[in-house]
Amino acid sequence: MAKDKVNRPKARLPRGFADRSAAEIRRTSAMLAMIRSVYERWGFEPVETPFVEFADALGKFLPDDDRPNEGVFAFQDDDEQWLSLRYDLTAPLARMVAENFDATPKPYKSFRSGWVFRNEKPGPGRFRQFMQCDADIVGAASPLADAEICMMAADAMKALGFSDGEYAIRVNSRAVLDGVLSEAGVASDDPRRLTVLRAIDKADKFPLSEIAKLLGAGREDESGDFTKGAGLSDDQAAVVLSLLDPSAPPRISDDLAQIRDNVAAAGYETIKVDPSVVRGLEYYTGPVFEAELLFEVRDDKGRPQKFGSVGGGGRYDGLVGRFRSQDVPATGFSVGVSRLAAALSARSDAEPSIGPVIVTVMDRDEIALYQAMTAKLRNALNTNGMTVPVEMYIGDSGMKAQLKYADRRNSPCVIIQGSQEREAGKVQIKDLAAGKRAAEEIENRSDWVAARPAQVEVDDTIEAIAAAVRNILQ
Amino acid sequence: MAKDKVNRPKARLPRGFADRSAAEIRRTSAMLAMIRSVYERWGFEPVETPFVEFADALGKFLPDDDRPNEGVFAFQDDDEQWLSLRYDLTAPLARMVAENFDATPKPYKSFRSGWVFRNEKPGPGRFRQFMQCDADIVGAASPLADAEICMMAADAMKALGFSDGEYAIRVNSRAVLDGVLSEAGVASDDPRRLTVLRAIDKADKFPLSEIAKLLGAGREDESGDFTKGAGLSDDQAAVVLSLLDPSAPPRISDDLAQIRDNVAAAGYETIKVDPSVVRGLEYYTGPVFEAELLFEVRDDKGRPQKFGSVGGGGRYDGLVGRFRSQDVPATGFSVGVSRLAAALSARSDAEPSIGPVIVTVMDRDEIALYQAMTAKLRNALNTNGMTVPVEMYIGDSGMKAQLKYADRRNSPCVIIQGSQEREAGKVQIKDLAAGKRAAEEIENRSDWVAARPAQVEVDDTIEAIAAAVRNILQ
Repeated sequence: MAKDKVNRPKARLPRGFADRSAAEIRRTSAMLAMIRSVYERWGFEPVETPFVEFADALGKFLPDDDRPNEGVFAFQDDDEQWLSLRYDLTAPLARMVAENFDATPKPYKSFRSGWVFRNEKPGPGRFRQFMQCDADIVGAASPLADAEICMMAADAMKALGFSDGEYAIRVNSRAVLDGVLSEAGVASDDPRRLTVLRAIDKADKFPLSEIAKLLGAGREDESGDFTKGAGLSDDQAAVVLSLLDPSAPPRISDDLAQIRDNVAAAGYETIKVDPSVVRGLEYYTGPVFEAELLFEVRDDKGRPQKFGSVGGGGRYDGLVGRFRSQDVPATGFSVGVSRLAAALSARSDAEPSIGPVIVTVMDRDEIALYQAMTAKLRNALNTNGMTVPVEMYIGDSGMKAQLKYADRRNSPCVIIQGSQEREAGKVQIKDLAAGKRAAEEIENRSDWVAARPAQVEVDDTIEAIAAAVRNILQ
Repeated sequence: MAKDKVNRPKARLPRGFADRSAAEIRRTSAMLAMIRSVYERWGFEPVETPFVEFADALGKFLPDDDRPNEGVFAFQDDDEQWLSLRYDLTAPLARMVAENFDATPKPYKSFRSGWVFRNEKPGPGRFRQFMQCDADIVGAASPLADAEICMMAADAMKALGFSDGEYAIRVNSRAVLDGVLSEAGVASDDPRRLTVLRAIDKADKFPLSEIAKLLGAGREDESGDFTKGAGLSDDQAAVVLSLLDPSAPPRISDDLAQIRDNVAAAGYETIKVDPSVVRGLEYYTGPVFEAELLFEVRDDKGRPQKFGSVGGGGRYDGLVGRFRSQDVPATGFSVGVSRLAAALSARSDAEPSIGPVIVTVMDRDEIALYQAMTAKLRNALNTNGMTVPVEMYIGDSGMKAQLKYADRRNSPCVIIQGSQEREAGKVQIKDLAAGKRAAEEIENRSDWVAARPAQVEVDDTIEAIAAAVRNILQ
C-alpha cells in the first residue's frame, strides 16, 4: 500500500482519553467483581442503560461548575434532536425507572458499573472518560433505605480488604446544612450559598480558623494564592462554624438520627455522622454520604496525605419525579472506580501476571509437530479451572529473537526441540526466571555453558512436558 | 417539587438504544468470561481503548453502505477537531499499536470486549450501540497467525458448549476472490465488483441457479421483490460460479493452503475452507473467516432456519500501516456478542435466577431487631463462595404488599416475626415456590388455613433460620 506521507493520519488520542493495560483491566475487573458480589448479596440486581440519551432526559446536574453550560458531550441526531453521552449513571437510571414505572417492583434495588463522559478540561489523573459503579434504591422514602446503602458500601469496603480503622462512611443531611444556612441568614437562592457549602466541604482539610476566612473575606494559602470568601459577617460565620465545632451541641436532623440508630442496630461502627459532608451534585435532597479512606499515602512531592474520598452519594427524591407529576423517593451510592483501584494498588503491589509458556519454532519444516505439541500441552495444563497460557511462536524470526520475545512476554519457560532432540525423543525446557537469577550469579561464559542452569531435558511426551512445566510454575 | 407539566421532559430513549435487564447482563457476562478464559489460555492479553477517537485516526472502513458518508457518531472538540465514537474495535487497536509501535512486543496478541456505535437506521435486532469481543495478532505475516485465530475461535465455540456438528469456522481468502474476479474480467475498480461479492456471499442461502441470476440481470424473490444483478455476461458469470461449484476443481491460494494444513495438523476439523465467505469490511487484505452456527432455529414466522453467522474477521495488513511508512501485518476475529448470546439462549433456557430472601417488617417499632437479623442471616448464608441475596423490606407498606413485593422479586422465601412469634422465640418462614404449587392444588380456603402449606416455624436463632432457608433453597 503506497502512501502519501502528507495524508498519513497521526496515531494519537484526544486529550483526556487513555488506553488501558492488561494489569489495569485485571485489577479493576477483580475489584468490581468483589463489589458486585456484595451488592448481589444485599438483593440488588444488575441493570444497565445505554451510553447515549436525549439531552433533555439527562438534564443538567453536573457538579457546580464555573462554566455551567459545558461539561457534556452532545451532538444532534438526524432529526435534529440533541443527544448526549451520559455524564453519570444516576440521571439515566432515573429516566429508565420513570419510563418503566408501573412495571418496576418498588423498592427497586439495582446496581451497574460503566463508563461516563465529561467534556471538561482534563488534567493529571482527571479524564474525560472514567468509570463509575453505582447502587440505587428507588421508591423507598424511609431513611432505612439510606442506612441500607451506607451499610452495603461499608460491606463493599470490608470485602475489598479494608479494616475498620482504614475507612469511614461519613453521613450528613441536606436538612442539617439547609437548617444552619437558614439560621445564618443565607437563603436557598442566596448567591453566597455555594461558596459557604464549599467552605464547609474543606473542613476535613483545614482548621476552623481557616474555614472562618473562607466564610468571611477570603483566604491566602502558603503560595500566596488568594481564594475569595463568601463575605458573611462574623455573626453569620459563627453560626456556620458552630456546625463544625466538635465542642458545640451536635446538629442532627430526623433522617440523620434514624440512619445513625439503624446502622448502630446492625453493628456498623464505621458509618459516622459528620456535619462537614457536603457533596457537589445539585440534585441531592436529603442524606448525603461519602466513603473515605483514612490511611496515608505519599503525594507526588512525597508528603504523607490522607487518601480521601473514593465514592459518595445521597438521596435524590426529585430526579425520577422530573418526568412525573410527583416526586419519587430515591437514594444511591457511587464508587469512583479508578480512585478506589488506585487505593488498592497503593496498599499492596499486585503480583505481576505470568506470561505464556512458549513453544519455540527451531525447524520451520516441522511446524505441524510444534502446532500439535502446543495444542496438546495447552489442553493438558488448563484443567481444574487453571489458566496457563500456552502459545507457539508465530513470527518469522530465529531462536535468539524468539527468546527475546519470550522475555518481553514475561514467559515462565520456553519449550525447544531441534532436530537432534526430536531424533532422541526429547525436548529442552528453559526456565526463564531461574535463568535470569542464574545470569546474575554466573560470571563466566564457559561456566554457564557447562552448567546449563535453568534448563531441563525431558521426554517429548505431553505428560513429561506438562509435568516439567508445572514444576517450573510452582 | 412543583413542576410545570409543559416543561416536564419525556422519559424515553433515542431509537436504536436499549436498557439491559439483569438476565441479559448475567448471560452475556458469563459468556464473555468463558471466551476470555479461552483467549487467555492462548497467550492473549486484555487491552482496551477508549470510546472516543480522532475521526481521522479511525478512518472510514464501515461495511459497504449505500450512504457512505454516514455511519459514525461524530462531534467537534472545543479546538474544532472532529472526534468520533468508535464504530468497531479494530480501527482503535490499529491506532494504539501504531502509537506504541516500538514498545510493543511482536507478534502482539490481545483481546477486548466493548461497546461500539453505528449511526445507522435501527431496526428489529439492529441497534446503534452493540457489543463486540475481538482478538487480534499484530506483527505476524505468516498464515500461522490466521490459523491460530481460527483455532482459538473454534476453542471458544467448544468452551461455550457447541459440539463439532453445531458450528463451523469457514475460511476463505481475498486472494481467491480477487483471482476469480480478475479472471471474470471484473477489475478491482469495477463498479460491479461489490454486487458480485454480495452475490457470492449469498451462496449459503441460495442454490447456484439463483446466484447466477444475481450475477446476471437480477433476481425476483417469492414476494415479487426484484434485486438488480451485477450485469455480468453468461461467460463471466460462469467463471464466478465455478468458484462455488463443489464439482469444479477447488480454487485455493497459498495462504489458504497453509491455514488448511496447519489446522489439520492441530486436529481442528471444524475449520473449513469455503469459497463463499466474503465478509463486508473493506480493509481485509488476505484470509477472511466466519464463525457460523449450523443448527436450526425458528424464525419469527415459525419456519426453521440455520442460525448463521455469530462472528468473523480476517487479515488487515494495511490498517496499522495507515499511520506508518510501511504495512504492518495483522489479523483478527470479532464475536457478535448479542447474536452469540441469543444463540446460547435459543439452545437452552437459562434457569431463572433466584431473588432475595426477604425479612419482612411486621412491627415497625422493632426495626432494629429485623435489621440485626438480616445482617446476621446474610453473613451466615453467604459463605464458601455462595451468593444468597438477603434483604430487609424497607418500603412503608403492610404485610400483604410485602408478600406481593417478595413475589415480584422472585423471592424463594420470606421471614416473618410478629409480636406473638417474638415472645415465643420463633419465626415463620414461608416457602414461596412451594406455596405457589400448593395454591394450585388446594381449592378451599379453610383447608389452606388448616394445612398452612409451605410454611415452617423455627426458633429465632440465626443458625435455625439459616438451616431452614438452606433447606428451602435446595
